Amino acid sequence: MRLLVANANTTEAITALCAAAAREAASPGTEIIPATPRFGPAVIATRAENIIAGHALLELLAVHAGQVDGVLLAVSHDTALEAARQMMPCPVVAMTEAACFAACLAGGRFGLITFGSTETYRERIAQHGLAARLAGLASVDATPQEAVRDPEGVARKLQAGLAELVGMGADAVVLGGAALAGMAPKLQPDSPVPLLDGIACGVRLLEMLVSLRLPKPRQGSFAAARGRETGGVAPALAALLRG
Amino acid sequence: MRLLVANANTTEAITALCAAAAREAASPGTEIIPATPRFGPAVIATRAENIIAGHALLELLAVHAGQVDGVLLAVSHDTALEAARQMMPCPVVAMTEAACFAACLAGGRFGLITFGSTETYRERIAQHGLAARLAGLASVDATPQEAVRDPEGVARKLQAGLAELVGMGADAVVLGGAALAGMAPKLQPDSPVPLLDGIACGVRLLEMLVSLRLPKPRQGSFAAARGRETGGVAPALAALLRG
Amino acid sequence: MRLLVANANTTEAITALCAAAAREAASPGTEIIPATPRFGPAVIATRAENIIAGHALLELLAVHAGQVDGVLLAVSHDTALEAARQMMPCPVVAMTEAACFAACLAGGRFGLITFGSTETYRERIAQHGLAARLAGLASVDATPQEAVRDPEGVARKLQAGLAELVGMGADAVVLGGAALAGMAPKLQPDSPVPLLDGIACGVRLLEMLVSLRLPKPRQGSFAAARGRETGGVAPALAALLRG
Amino acid sequence: MRLLVANANTTEAITALCAAAAREAASPGTEIIPATPRFGPAVIATRAENIIAGHALLELLAVHAGQVDGVLLAVSHDTALEAARQMMPCPVVAMTEAACFAACLAGGRFGLITFGSTETYRERIAQHGLAARLAGLASVDATPQEAVRDPEGVARKLQAGLAELVGMGADAVVLGGAALAGMAPKLQPDSPVPLLDGIACGVRLLEMLVSLRLPKPRQGSFAAARGRETGGVAPALAALLRG
Amino acid sequence: MRLLVANANTTEAITALCAAAAREAASPGTEIIPATPRFGPAVIATRAENIIAGHALLELLAVHAGQVDGVLLAVSHDTALEAARQMMPCPVVAMTEAACFAACLAGGRFGLITFGSTETYRERIAQHGLAARLAGLASVDATPQEAVRDPEGVARKLQAGLAELVGMGADAVVLGGAALAGMAPKLQPDSPVPLLDGIACGVRLLEMLVSLRLPKPRQGSFAAARGRETGGVAPALAALLRG
Amino acid sequence: MRLLVANANTTEAITALCAAAAREAASPGTEIIPATPRFGPAVIATRAENIIAGHALLELLAVHAGQVDGVLLAVSHDTALEAARQMMPCPVVAMTEAACFAACLAGGRFGLITFGSTETYRERIAQHGLAARLAGLASVDATPQEAVRDPEGVARKLQAGLAELVGMGADAVVLGGAALAGMAPKLQPDSPVPLLDGIACGVRLLEMLVSLRLPKPRQGSFAAARGRETGGVAPALAALLRG
Repeated sequence: MRLLVANANTTEAITALCAAAAREAASPGTEIIPATPRFGPAVIATRAENIIAGHALLELLAVHAGQVDGVLLAVSHDTALEAARQMMPCPVVAMTEAACFAACLAGGRFGLITFGSTETYRERIAQHGLAARLAGLASVDATPQEAVRDPEGVARKLQAGLAELVGMGADAVVLGGAALAGMAPKLQPDSPVPLLDGIACGVRLLEMLVSLRLPKPRQGSFAAARGRETGGVAPALAALLRG
Repeated sequence: MRLLVANANTTEAITALCAAAAREAASPGTEIIPATPRFGPAVIATRAENIIAGHALLELLAVHAGQVDGVLLAVSHDTALEAARQMMPCPVVAMTEAACFAACLAGGRFGLITFGSTETYRERIAQHGLAARLAGLASVDATPQEAVRDPEGVARKLQAGLAELVGMGADAVVLGGAALAGMAPKLQPDSPVPLLDGIACGVRLLEMLVSLRLPKPRQGSFAAARGRETGGVAPALAALLRG
Repeated sequence: MRLLVANANTTEAITALCAAAAREAASPGTEIIPATPRFGPAVIATRAENIIAGHALLELLAVHAGQVDGVLLAVSHDTALEAARQMMPCPVVAMTEAACFAACLAGGRFGLITFGSTETYRERIAQHGLAARLAGLASVDATPQEAVRDPEGVARKLQAGLAELVGMGADAVVLGGAALAGMAPKLQPDSPVPLLDGIACGVRLLEMLVSLRLPKPRQGSFAAARGRETGGVAPALAALLRG
Repeated sequence: MRLLVANANTTEAITALCAAAAREAASPGTEIIPATPRFGPAVIATRAENIIAGHALLELLAVHAGQVDGVLLAVSHDTALEAARQMMPCPVVAMTEAACFAACLAGGRFGLITFGSTETYRERIAQHGLAARLAGLASVDATPQEAVRDPEGVARKLQAGLAELVGMGADAVVLGGAALAGMAPKLQPDSPVPLLDGIACGVRLLEMLVSLRLPKPRQGSFAAARGRETGGVAPALAALLRG
Repeated sequence: MRLLVANANTTEAITALCAAAAREAASPGTEIIPATPRFGPAVIATRAENIIAGHALLELLAVHAGQVDGVLLAVSHDTALEAARQMMPCPVVAMTEAACFAACLAGGRFGLITFGSTETYRERIAQHGLAARLAGLASVDATPQEAVRDPEGVARKLQAGLAELVGMGADAVVLGGAALAGMAPKLQPDSPVPLLDGIACGVRLLEMLVSLRLPKPRQGSFAAARGRETGGVAPALAALLRG
Repeated sequence: MRLLVANANTTEAITALCAAAAREAASPGTEIIPATPRFGPAVIATRAENIIAGHALLELLAVHAGQVDGVLLAVSHDTALEAARQMMPCPVVAMTEAACFAACLAGGRFGLITFGSTETYRERIAQHGLAARLAGLASVDATPQEAVRDPEGVARKLQAGLAELVGMGADAVVLGGAALAGMAPKLQPDSPVPLLDGIACGVRLLEMLVSLRLPKPRQGSFAAARGRETGGVAPALAALLRG
C-alpha cells in the first residue's frame, strides 16, 4: 500500500518530520511517500495562508493521483480536506480529523491543545460535526522555538493545559499543530488521559479505508469532477478536474 | 465610497453581470470596481475549484488592498470569505452570506433555491451559524443554458421550488448561484415571499460596514497577518501577508 | 427615506439619545422620526415590563403605519420585534439584532457586554438563531448612574469585560443596553476588537432593506394580519389588525 | 389549592371550555378559578395579537397575585409565560409547555398537531429547549367552524395528520390550539400513540409545583420585580412591578 | 394509586430513604411500594454498574408489571429509563429526569450539583433533550461519608457550588445523586434559587401521568414488546418480553 | 493481535457470521476470537432486550479481560459500548459506531438503512455526537426471513432506500443491523455511494487503536472501576469491577 503524506506548507523539514512519524505508525508493507508543495506559506498561521496552501496542496495531490492508494494531509488545519476528498480517486484523511475521530473512540469528550490561537480549530471541529464531543480547547503560550530552547518549561505548560482540559471533562486530548507532532511519547507518561497524534491516527485510518476498497461516491457533492475548465492552473490539476 | 466587486471565477461575463447588479443596488456616490481573477476555474462547481478560486481571489484582492473601501465577494459559495476578511484592511462581505443575513431580517426562517447540488450551500450556511434559521434548500433541475433557451419553463420550475420552500416554512428565499442573479425581478411578482439577491444585499451591507468605520480586530483569529513568509505567491499577496 | 426610531419605554430622554445617534449614523436624505410610547415602563428591566412595553410599542407603531419607510426598534431587548415585523407594512429592524448581525460580518464569533443580567440577551440571541456565533456574554457590575458619576471607573470595568470576551474568542463585541449607547467612540480606541452600536447598525440595515424594496411575505407566519378582531385596543392598532 | 386558569384572549366561551377541562383534570380539593382578560384579541392568530394578549394576561394575573396558589396559562401559544413566571409569587405553567413536557415522559420524540400555521409552535418549542425531542409538526387544513359543521371529516383529517407524525417518529402527540381542546377523548381510540391535552397536563403539573413548595428565585432573570416604575398601566400590575 | 419506587442498586437503606421521601411527597391516597433489585452493584458509580443495574431493575419491574399504577426509578442515573418505559404497561418516570423537567418549569436554565463526576449527568441531560436548558454542572469534592461526619463543612461546599451555578445563569438547581437526597430542606433556606429533589418531583409527575390515563404507544420504538425470545432471564421478565 | 468479536445476543449463527466477516476484514496476523453471551435475547429488538444484552455482554467481556488486545461489539445497537470502554483494559469499538465514523471519512453526510425501526439508531448516532453528519435514516419494509426467501425483491427495496438517502444528501450509507451484514458486496455495485459494513470498519478501527498503544484514561468518567462492590454478578465481572 502506497500512502502519500502531503504537507501543505513549503517547509521540507516538517514534511520529513511527518513522514518519519508516518513510517513509525504504518503497518509493515505500507510505503510512505512524502510530498511538499511547490509554492505557498512556509508555515500556515493565517486564514489566507490556509487557502493558498489549499491550492498548493491540490496541485501536489493531482500529480500523484492514480499513483498512490491513499492520501494523508499532514497539516493540522486539515487544509482543503473536502476538496481533496472529492477530487482524488483514492481515500483522503487529514491529521486533525483523524486524531479527533480516534479520540472519540477512546472516551466520551475530547480536548485539543495547541500553541497559539484555538478558534480555527474550534471551527474545523464543528465542520467535522464533532462540536458535541469537544470538551474544550487549550492554548499554550509558547512557540516552537521555545519548545526547542526550554523543553522542560514548555512541557510544564503543556501538562498544565492538559490538566485544564481534563477538568473540563476531556477523556482524551488531541495534540494540535505540527509543533506538537512527536511530543506524545514525552507527554503521555504524565498525562491522565490518552494523547492523540494526528499523523499516527491518520496513517492507520487510511490503511482501514484502503483495505475497505470503498468506491468513491458517484452522486452528490463528493462525486468526482468531470469536464471542469480552468485557466492558469498546473497541468496535472487541470487534467484531473477535466476528468 | 469605492467598492470592489470581485468575482472568483475567470468568466468576465459573470463579473460584468455582477458589477451591473451592484451598480443598480448601490447608493449614489458609491463607485463599483469590478475585478476578475487571473487564473482558476471558468465556473466553480466542485470543491477543488472552490479552493483554487479562493487563492485566485485572494491574489486579486491583495492588488486592491488599501485602494478600495470595501470588498464584495461576487461568488455564491462565499469563497475564501473568512480569509479575505482577515487579510484585507477594509470590510469584506460575500454574496450568499449577505442574502442570508438580509433574509433573517425579513421573517423567521429562510430557504435557498439554486440550480444543482444544495449540499455545499447547506454547509456554508451552517458555517455562517445560521442553520437554525434555514427552513430548507431547493434544487431546481435546470441549467443556466436551459434558462436562456426556455425561460418560461425554467421559471415554472423555480416557482414550484419556491412553493416547496414556503411549505417548509420559509418566510423569504435566497437566490443561490450566479445563474439566478438578476432573476429576482422576474420571479418576485409570483412569489408569496420576498426573494433575496446576494449582490444587492451585499452592496448595501458593505455600505453599512464602511459607514460604521469599524476598526479591524487587533487580536484573535481575524487579526491582520504580520511577518508571514510565502514562496511562489504573487508579489502583492506576499507583501500583504508580510504585513 | 423616513425611518421611525421607536423607543419601547416611556423615558423621552432615551428616545432623544437614540434619535440623535440614529441621525448621526443615517445617510444623507434619511429622515429620523423619534417616537415614545404612551404607556409602559420607564425602563425595561424585567420580563413583564418587556411584554407591556411590547404592547405599547405596537400601539405606537400602528399610528405610523403607512407613513414611514422603515422602523428601528430602539430598545436593546428587541421588544416585540417579530410581531412588529409581521404587523407593519414596511421593514422593521431591532437594535441588538442589528448589532449582532453586523458583528457577524466583522469576524467569526462575537460577544455582548452589558450592565446587569445577561440571560435575557442569551435567550434573544438564541431566538435570532445566532447561538453558534456567540463567544460569550459579559456583565459589568455598574449602573447607568455610576457611569455618569464615575465615567473612568466604569470605563475600566468595561475594558476588563471586553478583554474577557476577547479571551473567550470574540472578534467583535456588541454593546448591549441603552446605558451603553453612545459609548462606542470612547471605548473603541482601547478595545482590541470592533464595538458594535445597535442604533448605528440598525439605521444602516434599515436603509438596506428599504432600498431593496422587498415585498412583505404573503404566506406563512409573517403574512400581514387580516380580519383580526380585538377589544379595548387603541384604534390605530385595532384597525391595522383588522387589515 | 386554588388554581387560576387564565385565558389570554377575550372570548369567554374559550375560558369556560378550558375551566371545565381543568376541573375534570384536577385532583379533589383543587379549586379552579377561571379568568378572562379585560382587553385584547378575540382569538390570537398573529404575532402582534400575542403581544397585546400578553399585556392583557399580565394585567389579569396581577389582580390575582397572592390570592391563588398557581396559575395555568390557558392559551396554546404559552403567551407571556416567562414574564408571568417571573412576576407572580406562585408557580406558573402554560398549556402547550405542559403538554410537551408530559409528552417527553411518555416516549422519545413527540409531534404537535394543530389547525393552521405551525411555525410559531416550532419557535415556542425551541424556546422551551425541546427542539431535539420534536419529531414534527402537522397542520390540519380545517377551521374550528368546520370541526363543528363536519366533525367526522375533520376527525379523518386529524387521524391522517397523526399518522404522518407517527411516521416521522412521534411516540406521542400534543394537541395544539384551543380548537383541539377536548378532542383528545374522541381522537385517542384511533390513535396509535397517546395524545396530550395541555389543560389536563397543566393542571397536574401545577399541582406538583404547588405541592413542592419551591421558593421563587431570588437572583437571576426570574427574580421578582422590585421598584419598577410604569405609567398608564393598570394599578394592580403597576403595584406588583413596584414590589 | 399504587406507585412502585424502584431502587437500581442493592443497598436496602437507600431504597428505604427514597421510599420515605416518596411517601412525604405523595398525595393522600397514593401508596408507595419500595423495591430493591435482587442483584447488582451496591452503589452505581461506573458505567458498567449502570448497565448491570439496568438489567436488575428491569427484572425487578417485571415482577410488579400489572400490579402497580406507575413506576418511579429511584436512581439518579435514570438507569434503563427508556427500556422500562417501553416494557412496562404503566407510566415510568426517573428521578433526575423528573427534577430536570420540574426545574424547567421554575425558571429559564437549571444547574445540577452532585458529589463526584458530572460527565454522566451531562450525557443523561443531553439524552433527555434538555442540553439547551442546562446552565452548568457543579461537582462538590466530598463523599456521602463526609456528609455524615462533617455536615456543616459539606453544606458550605454545597452552598459554594450553588452560588457558582447561579453565577452561570441557573434559575433552579437539581440535586443529583442519592447522597444529596433529603438535603433540599437543609440547603434551601440559604439558596438563592429553588432546589429540586428527584424523588419528590418524580412522585408528583407520576401522579400526573397516572391521572391522565394515557394509553401506551402501539407503534414506534416505545411500543410494547411482543414475542421476544430470551434465555437465562428471570421468568417474569422473560414473560413480559414474550408479550 | 487478538481481537474479541463479541455478539450481544445469544444466537450463535450471528456470532459465526460476524466472526467470518471480521476474519475477512482483518489484517494478516490478527486473530479473531468469537464470543456469544451466556444469557439474554435471541435477537435484540426492544429497549429492554438491549439492556439485558448489555449485562450479558459485559459478563462475557469480563471473562476475556486481559486476554485480548481489543474488543469489537458485534451488535448494531452498539450495546453497552461506553460501559465496555470504561471497564475493559483494552480498546473497545462497536460496529455501528465504527461504520458511522468511517462514513464520515468518505464524504460529507451519511445515511443509515435498516430493516424495521430507525428511531433507536437516530438516538445512538446522536449519542455518538454525529447528528450533524446524519443526512437521514431509511427503513426498509422487509424481514431477514424475506431476505432469504426473496433476495431480489428485498434488494430492490434496499436500492430504493439507498436512492432516497442519496436524495437527502447522503454521500455514504451505513448498513444497520445484523440482517444487512454481509450484503454490502451485493448492494455496492448498484449503489451510487459507498456502503459501510460495521464489522469490517470495526475490525480495522480496532487494529488502529491497538497499534496506537494508547493508555486508558486514569481520570474522568472513563477511568477504570476500582473497589466497586456487587452482588449476584458473575465472578469475572465482579472481580473486574473490584479492580
